[in-house]
Amino acid sequence: MNGNAAAKTQPGCQFASDNTAGACPEALAGFLEANEGCQLSYGNDAYTPAVADRLRELFGLDCDVYFVFNGTAANSLAVSTCCQPYHSVICADVAHLETDECGGPEFFSGGAKLLLATSVHGKLEVPSVEELVTRRTDIHYPKPHVLSITQSTELGTVYTLDELAELGTAAKRLGLKVHMDGARFANAVAALDVPPGEIIRAAQVDVLCLGGAKIGLPIGEAVIFFNRKLAADFAYRCKQAGQLASKMRFLTAPWLGLLSNDAWLKHARHGNAMAHRLSTGLQRLPGVEVLHPTDANAVFVALPEQVHRHLAERGWRYYTFIGRGSARFMCSWATALADVDELLADVSVVISAR
Amino acid sequence: MNGNAAAKTQPGCQFASDNTAGACPEALAGFLEANEGCQLSYGNDAYTPAVADRLRELFGLDCDVYFVFNGTAANSLAVSTCCQPYHSVICADVAHLETDECGGPEFFSGGAKLLLATSVHGKLEVPSVEELVTRRTDIHYPKPHVLSITQSTELGTVYTLDELAELGTAAKRLGLKVHMDGARFANAVAALDVPPGEIIRAAQVDVLCLGGAKIGLPIGEAVIFFNRKLAADFAYRCKQAGQLASKMRFLTAPWLGLLSNDAWLKHARHGNAMAHRLSTGLQRLPGVEVLHPTDANAVFVALPEQVHRHLAERGWRYYTFIGRGSARFMCSWATALADVDELLADVSVVISAR
Amino acid sequence: MNGNAAAKTQPGCQFASDNTAGACPEALAGFLEANEGCQLSYGNDAYTPAVADRLRELFGLDCDVYFVFNGTAANSLAVSTCCQPYHSVICADVAHLETDECGGPEFFSGGAKLLLATSVHGKLEVPSVEELVTRRTDIHYPKPHVLSITQSTELGTVYTLDELAELGTAAKRLGLKVHMDGARFANAVAALDVPPGEIIRAAQVDVLCLGGAKIGLPIGEAVIFFNRKLAADFAYRCKQAGQLASKMRFLTAPWLGLLSNDAWLKHARHGNAMAHRLSTGLQRLPGVEVLHPTDANAVFVALPEQVHRHLAERGWRYYTFIGRGSARFMCSWATALADVDELLADVSVVISAR
Amino acid sequence: MNGNAAAKTQPGCQFASDNTAGACPEALAGFLEANEGCQLSYGNDAYTPAVADRLRELFGLDCDVYFVFNGTAANSLAVSTCCQPYHSVICADVAHLETDECGGPEFFSGGAKLLLATSVHGKLEVPSVEELVTRRTDIHYPKPHVLSITQSTELGTVYTLDELAELGTAAKRLGLKVHMDGARFANAVAALDVPPGEIIRAAQVDVLCLGGAKIGLPIGEAVIFFNRKLAADFAYRCKQAGQLASKMRFLTAPWLGLLSNDAWLKHARHGNAMAHRLSTGLQRLPGVEVLHPTDANAVFVALPEQVHRHLAERGWRYYTFIGRGSARFMCSWATALADVDELLADVSVVISAR
Repeated sequence: MNGNAAAKTQPGCQFASDNTAGACPEALAGFLEANEGCQLSYGNDAYTPAVADRLRELFGLDCDVYFVFNGTAANSLAVSTCCQPYHSVICADVAHLETDECGGPEFFSGGAKLLLATSVHGKLEVPSVEELVTRRTDIHYPKPHVLSITQSTELGTVYTLDELAELGTAAKRLGLKVHMDGARFANAVAALDVPPGEIIRAAQVDVLCLGGAKIGLPIGEAVIFFNRKLAADFAYRCKQAGQLASKMRFLTAPWLGLLSNDAWLKHARHGNAMAHRLSTGLQRLPGVEVLHPTDANAVFVALPEQVHRHLAERGWRYYTFIGRGSARFMCSWATALADVDELLADVSVVISAR
Repeated sequence: MNGNAAAKTQPGCQFASDNTAGACPEALAGFLEANEGCQLSYGNDAYTPAVADRLRELFGLDCDVYFVFNGTAANSLAVSTCCQPYHSVICADVAHLETDECGGPEFFSGGAKLLLATSVHGKLEVPSVEELVTRRTDIHYPKPHVLSITQSTELGTVYTLDELAELGTAAKRLGLKVHMDGARFANAVAALDVPPGEIIRAAQVDVLCLGGAKIGLPIGEAVIFFNRKLAADFAYRCKQAGQLASKMRFLTAPWLGLLSNDAWLKHARHGNAMAHRLSTGLQRLPGVEVLHPTDANAVFVALPEQVHRHLAERGWRYYTFIGRGSARFMCSWATALADVDELLADVSVVISAR
Repeated sequence: MNGNAAAKTQPGCQFASDNTAGACPEALAGFLEANEGCQLSYGNDAYTPAVADRLRELFGLDCDVYFVFNGTAANSLAVSTCCQPYHSVICADVAHLETDECGGPEFFSGGAKLLLATSVHGKLEVPSVEELVTRRTDIHYPKPHVLSITQSTELGTVYTLDELAELGTAAKRLGLKVHMDGARFANAVAALDVPPGEIIRAAQVDVLCLGGAKIGLPIGEAVIFFNRKLAADFAYRCKQAGQLASKMRFLTAPWLGLLSNDAWLKHARHGNAMAHRLSTGLQRLPGVEVLHPTDANAVFVALPEQVHRHLAERGWRYYTFIGRGSARFMCSWATALADVDELLADVSVVISAR
Repeated sequence: MNGNAAAKTQPGCQFASDNTAGACPEALAGFLEANEGCQLSYGNDAYTPAVADRLRELFGLDCDVYFVFNGTAANSLAVSTCCQPYHSVICADVAHLETDECGGPEFFSGGAKLLLATSVHGKLEVPSVEELVTRRTDIHYPKPHVLSITQSTELGTVYTLDELAELGTAAKRLGLKVHMDGARFANAVAALDVPPGEIIRAAQVDVLCLGGAKIGLPIGEAVIFFNRKLAADFAYRCKQAGQLASKMRFLTAPWLGLLSNDAWLKHARHGNAMAHRLSTGLQRLPGVEVLHPTDANAVFVALPEQVHRHLAERGWRYYTFIGRGSARFMCSWATALADVDELLADVSVVISAR
């Protein structure tokens, strides 16, 4: 390598997203182990079936497991499997599916429409979902076929099991399949402190997109069908859609590391704890408003304009929302306590000086 | 890790494909270096622009460079960018695009049709291409818009610069964009012993899909637009189609290692040399027929049925073609000379015993 | 025929839509004339080029003209031609494109997303359009590429030339193509009393979908490209998408009748006049609120619940909007003055009795 | 009308296709009857359910019936309903689906691939179908899901009931749905002289596309699901795909005329008889070779080059096949015996003069 790693680090971006972190040590160990020797391609290696088994064990539920490259693909393919092009998918107005997939679900499904339900702190509620299903029944509007729930949500909140049960029950009553966008499912499990399978059972999830990259994998997500009938021919769908890795071991072996000794849960708890520390610290400062409950690893906060300027000068990178003065800080398995405190101190300095 | 690497190796599959090998040391070094610290996601890291620059330098041509997860996506997205759903793509009857993408090009393009030109040892020839373009000009048949050339071919042959120039000239005369499926482009460069840019210039390539996995990356391919107008908004296309890596550094940093000190070329030469040794060895055996010139890293050979049985018993894995008694042996950067000789010996034993 | 036409009429549905009317006499004459003898298919008949010429003459602008079966197809194909799957289309929140095409634009375009601008009485305004274009510029959100304007609008209003000019200028400044949904374009021309070409010029329309069925054709719409570059290969697009009529004369010859002696304009004026009479009559009744200006041939009105019940008993059919007590009455070329007055009388009776 | 009907006829094109004829008198009567008064749109008129009932009666089988605008749409939507984008459809190498839909099936299905079986005089045979299903079972090739049979075939031949039974049985054994392209189904019924339902039962047809335009309608085809489960939500599919007529009565009422008093069958018999007369006449001429059995209403014939020149000079229009000297002459309900004899005489003249 002619690179210079030190010169290439980008300090300040650790709160920009939970995907600015690298691979966690356990995932990396899995990756390196898998690199030894030759292995059959396309999932016929020695690791892939083992990860699927490990996930079945973890959920305590029978399920079919597939591995894809990223979240756009996981969500889009899962949703496409639950509907036809002339169907619609109900999701929250802030759902990643709607706001950050560049039309991925519409593309992969061949035209299925997203219907946006209003949400409270990012969470769907039954009446809004029901209204979308019942307000039109004519063929000029796409027939609702799927309810997509993000757990933990895009706003850093976590549905309780009761809330999920209400949504799941309503979905089934209304004839909807349930898709769970679990890009940060691990953080939800850590927050609720329940076995993962209970979330699935509560929400009556048909298909879960289980985030890998955000919890410590270098690359990859899992698509898990608890409604196994939906999984028929899903391998073909993945292949056609450019989501079948030739050297599949590199997508799957890292999961083995991550899933061993509850490393994934440890990392999720850490991310949540760092977010909690940051949120609590910010909340104490005058003029700072935490916008949503910090249930998981995201902190949404309204900050005075001077704070934004100061943080930018200090090199901090994070998402802001135009015209609203608000910011999102994400924590991950790699977020250092010292960085949280440094960020808090940098905010504090400006607030005190006002 | 609770795994046992030794137990997990799958000896015997090294000739099954050039993607049964792991990551080469140089790529792995790039991967590991990139894992340090946090980096902005979606290609805003420190590595991705450096790889694009390195590729521009390598080709000695101005070009736009994108990184996607696999070959199905690279080829399908590149081809989709060159045409509309009601256009058609001319490729060889043995093209991977046709035979092994499960309808990927049709899916990504929204319905573009592949028109199959007859090929000789996997190579397209101008008259067959021209016939496909000119035989129909009515709107009931999709208008030909793209010529797809695989270099090196699916049958292990390599187009000469002259052959490419003929195809490229014909394509432009016929109003076709030129797509090159370069899953094994490195092996072609090694075989021709010319600067990579000469291949591009000869064939007047608009867009090249440059294989990464088959030459030593763990995951990933590059899509390189020499016709830069075609690249407009390609980033959106990748994003929508589930081909934008969040932790992009893991797709790109390994290229830095691979491209340093001509490591890629060294590996390609090695793969070609191993294939040549195998081919030459097999050719000497009575009853064995090498079916196509072994220009690159693939050996296609017709073997007596007893040989197939014996090789299977000995644990060798490779592709066979139903009813034709023929086999494909692929060599890669990782193919050991000892393995080639062991395979030859295993074939020899049966041949001698006949 | 074993039918009994008298038994088959459905009185009471004349206000349900402007497509509950049959073919107007002039269109029917064209249809019948065209039925004589044999004609080449797929538009190579003697009528189709004549209609295209007649439309060019009518608009006084150079343009390419195509004929398709219905409005869903016209709009969806036109919009698809203006963008790629990863682009987005800005339209009013009440646009037919959004509310009544069952995902047609998403299907035909392969995934393009509709972005909804708030509207006032169904009309777009520049600030809302501009906000949608500028609020996101990252690749995680589909790039806005098209502005779709409905003239006359879905709420029966008509943009003035000044309003169109503002939208057109903004669209071009923002890099958007302009699509006009002209399902009721004729009614807008009648309302504005300007040459059709002025509407096109004001709004800088790239492609107009010109409604045929609603103004008196039995079947069919025209897609007219004033931006002729967009029309390249559009014939292929129509063919592939199932929109090329084999006996094209039956889609086109009726236009000849409709366009002769300004029959289309006469019919549009009649529909508008009937709507105006109905609207004015309703407005005089206490407890009745006309909801939008009756610029063209649609009347939107809030009626007391008892009125709805009475009208239903009397056999009147029209669209109602759940939970809002409002109704839409459409007038067409075939709406009889006596029917308008009878409807008014039926509403009146209930109002007076309250 | 400012047209001049006489000037607009195109004599000489009556053999170019069976869609160069206009609407037959019975269909026209239905069209005209339906034009009276107002009718609810989108199929809620008084005619549409009556046609569906009439078709159910005709086939003597329970079925769901839909009406679309043309054959491309009928076939593409029917096939799309039988498969997913990653599946494949087996059809004859000469199938209209493959050769003349401009990628329609691929477009509507979102990427399903056509697999071409060799055919004999346009007819599929079981071994070739079976070979396509069984030769690949890996996920890199789209899984065969549909068998498409054209009856009567594109080459003017008609499958016997026994031949259909063999194909149907094989299809079901191989797990394939059966689609029948019945653009000229009427001609097949006339040729076989059996009740239409027997053809359906023999081939175990899941969905039939029943041609309307070619047998005398002005516009339109029917899609008939004998496997009614497939029809679930098909109305939505039609709507989204631009195939729901607003003034549906004009697509359906003509069927009532056509289906009354076996008018359709009378017309089909006439077309077949004219083709038979033409074929028999041509066969008698030296140097003329009839290429396929003239079972239905198409005559395929190889003619000397001078004949083609003479016919062109005389104004005859018909399809020719490049480089093969062959021609297709289609007969329809409107083909006049005198025209057949005139065409024969024109061919004769040249032949005699040689």
